[in-house]
Amino acid sequence: MPNRFDPPSGTRDFLAADVERREHAFAAIRSVFARYGFEPLQTPAFERLDVLMGKYGDEGEKLIFKILRRGEHEASGEADLALRYDMTVPLARVAAAYGSQLPTPYKRYAMGPVFRADRPGKDRYREFVQCDLDTLGSTSLLADAEVLAAHHDALAAVGLTQFTVQLNSRRVLTGLLTAFSVPPELGSGVLISLDKLDKQPPGAVVDELTERGLAVEQAAELVDALTAPDAVDQVRVALTKTDDGIAGLDEVDTVLSLLAGQLPAGRIAFTPRMVRGLSYYTGPIWEFVAPGVAGSLGAGGRYDHLIAQLGGPDLPGTGSSIGIERMLSLVPGAGDPSPPRLDVAVTVLGPDLAAQSFAFAAAGRSAGLRASVYLGSSGKLRTQLKWANDSGARWCVIYGEQERQAAVATVRDMRTGEQAEVPAGELAGYFAAAARADG
Amino acid sequence: MPNRFDPPSGTRDFLAADVERREHAFAAIRSVFARYGFEPLQTPAFERLDVLMGKYGDEGEKLIFKILRRGEHEASGEADLALRYDMTVPLARVAAAYGSQLPTPYKRYAMGPVFRADRPGKDRYREFVQCDLDTLGSTSLLADAEVLAAHHDALAAVGLTQFTVQLNSRRVLTGLLTAFSVPPELGSGVLISLDKLDKQPPGAVVDELTERGLAVEQAAELVDALTAPDAVDQVRVALTKTDDGIAGLDEVDTVLSLLAGQLPAGRIAFTPRMVRGLSYYTGPIWEFVAPGVAGSLGAGGRYDHLIAQLGGPDLPGTGSSIGIERMLSLVPGAGDPSPPRLDVAVTVLGPDLAAQSFAFAAAGRSAGLRASVYLGSSGKLRTQLKWANDSGARWCVIYGEQERQAAVATVRDMRTGEQAEVPAGELAGYFAAAARADG
Repeated sequence: MPNRFDPPSGTRDFLAADVERREHAFAAIRSVFARYGFEPLQTPAFERLDVLMGKYGDEGEKLIFKILRRGEHEASGEADLALRYDMTVPLARVAAAYGSQLPTPYKRYAMGPVFRADRPGKDRYREFVQCDLDTLGSTSLLADAEVLAAHHDALAAVGLTQFTVQLNSRRVLTGLLTAFSVPPELGSGVLISLDKLDKQPPGAVVDELTERGLAVEQAAELVDALTAPDAVDQVRVALTKTDDGIAGLDEVDTVLSLLAGQLPAGRIAFTPRMVRGLSYYTGPIWEFVAPGVAGSLGAGGRYDHLIAQLGGPDLPGTGSSIGIERMLSLVPGAGDPSPPRLDVAVTVLGPDLAAQSFAFAAAGRSAGLRASVYLGSSGKLRTQLKWANDSGARWCVIYGEQERQAAVATVRDMRTGEQAEVPAGELAGYFAAAARADG
Repeated sequence: MPNRFDPPSGTRDFLAADVERREHAFAAIRSVFARYGFEPLQTPAFERLDVLMGKYGDEGEKLIFKILRRGEHEASGEADLALRYDMTVPLARVAAAYGSQLPTPYKRYAMGPVFRADRPGKDRYREFVQCDLDTLGSTSLLADAEVLAAHHDALAAVGLTQFTVQLNSRRVLTGLLTAFSVPPELGSGVLISLDKLDKQPPGAVVDELTERGLAVEQAAELVDALTAPDAVDQVRVALTKTDDGIAGLDEVDTVLSLLAGQLPAGRIAFTPRMVRGLSYYTGPIWEFVAPGVAGSLGAGGRYDHLIAQLGGPDLPGTGSSIGIERMLSLVPGAGDPSPPRLDVAVTVLGPDLAAQSFAFAAAGRSAGLRASVYLGSSGKLRTQLKWANDSGARWCVIYGEQERQAAVATVRDMRTGEQAEVPAGELAGYFAAAARADG
């Protein structure tokens, strides 16, 4: 039941354990991208409204969060800014703004929140992290293979093992339509229907295709070629009859051969029935899927005219978008209990002892450990030991009147309960050694 | 001159070198906070409008970016969400929402963008990173000292050396007003005027104080006590006459004694004329300043009733806010040229050689290096070597027909021009060794 202290609908607060789990995954992904020579780009959370409008179609446009004009214009109820909806339109703007300052090709990744006024649901948020990597300015299939491989390695780096990559090409699909004599004017509608083959039974798709104007036998033949056990072979044969089909097959086979030695066996397969819905793709297309997971773990492809259509320069491009939120839900260890908050907990057993306790915590930190003094109001050792335990501390430094007189600290191992007296000046060294011994 | 491809007024695009410089500093700061036992918190970029309204005063409220209602309500021109203005109101909301799930005390840091519809200017942006650390639920002065020390260590961790900390206490200021017989009803106005002593000549502040209703001699005496060479001694003597003054001095001296061994000598000083403008402070207050830098590098203090005033539970609190953007402008190396993009650049000298070149780049990555193949359209070695050089690559892997026949790769050291032939299967090991030798 939502209450007035909940975050806004479709957004989330991330407490420590969630932040740490997410940031750990993000760091692993950034590290993969950097090793591939992709560089980071950060653009503002909002753009001018005119930069975003007209770029996402009618349905997308409804999901844009608009920001009210400020000052005396506020009363007009008009908007002049809007929260970013994706990372691609900002990329087109940046390519236009910084052209010659950017390397050629421009290989960049962007990872940050995007905002959509969508109906919230499972894995569907109004603020969520989008993670894109793109190469602008290269027509080489090596660029497609590189983006795909980097996306693959990113999933592997966060610990996913059970996933596969479906590879296809827009030109394979064009060739397929020609080979099955689909009238050109029905082409895009037919592809939209074929895209449903992974969710709907073949018969339902055949019905939809006949509604779109295909003859029943033609529709059945097409669906059968895509869903038969030997679908790939049937399609390969059909494609050799058309120029687009031959060119598309060559794209697919080139990408497969580039990745053959890089990806685990069986990880990637030519999947002719995989149709990425978006019409702007022009070359290879791919989708990452996992068994039992509805929807994709990310997808991408070549889009040689999109950047110009979005208002940027006329640069060929290829890119991939990682479905970060869904991916995070599959990362091993999701839902594990919170890690301990402290390594070293230091008691404060009296006002006159506080400065030395404060210094002991600093000694723990200088050994690279997380260390803090007790900040509560109890002067009782027992209460403070409970706090040390609740913090998950590995060691508790006890410093009372007795220790002060002997110029030592008592270090209690919170796992074993064993205690050692350490000369006050040697505590940093003691912890450095203990941390090493602990690994 | 702004053009249509610029980011919105008051916001910035960060290309690779800037992102890397900023993230490097942020990582250093996070690491310091973690060692002090502060845990991360991430809240949404926007809040419900009613959570933010009535929290920032009239002037602050004008700077809130409001988000238009969606769907059929859009035409109403009304807002129901707003971009977060700071990290403190979200903290109060989180403290209310998750109460018992949070540790006691709750030590958290938040680092992320906040948004203000301010007039853009030098170091003043409409989207900027705010970095706060706070401890809720402790009345101990150890908590204040810990926050201050962590803020200090964060600045040191990013490489700042030339800065000092001005320390004071709200109760010192209250005691001071009593000691100088300032009528209680003039108190807050007088403090606002005294806060200007670091920017305006003493005479101007005296004039302002008399306008506020103080007698000229009284105003002059007060200003003199705060600006004289022996100001601290004069103030200490005056404060011993009032209860608040005695209590405030005790706060200051306790914090100074806790930090004495932790901060470099001369880094922190009792500064009675330092008045933090915000009226919600109740105990120690501090400000980080640097010579030649207008404004502060961050500031903080104890605010024992603020969280309740902001709609949260009635928890004592103390916190500090790092002025990240100003700090970043002082970080050594700001403005340095971009670091190299690649360690290993791999040529692609023919379609039949591409798969092996692609595998060589993977070998570089497996050695932990940043490696990529040439993605351009030229088949010329010379062009590709220029690309390798422009990428800042340390090594270029040349793989032509000759190398293919000998099953080797030619590795060119881009600094010395020396070349070595490496058996194709041994390239990963070669680079691992070369990277180690390079440090």
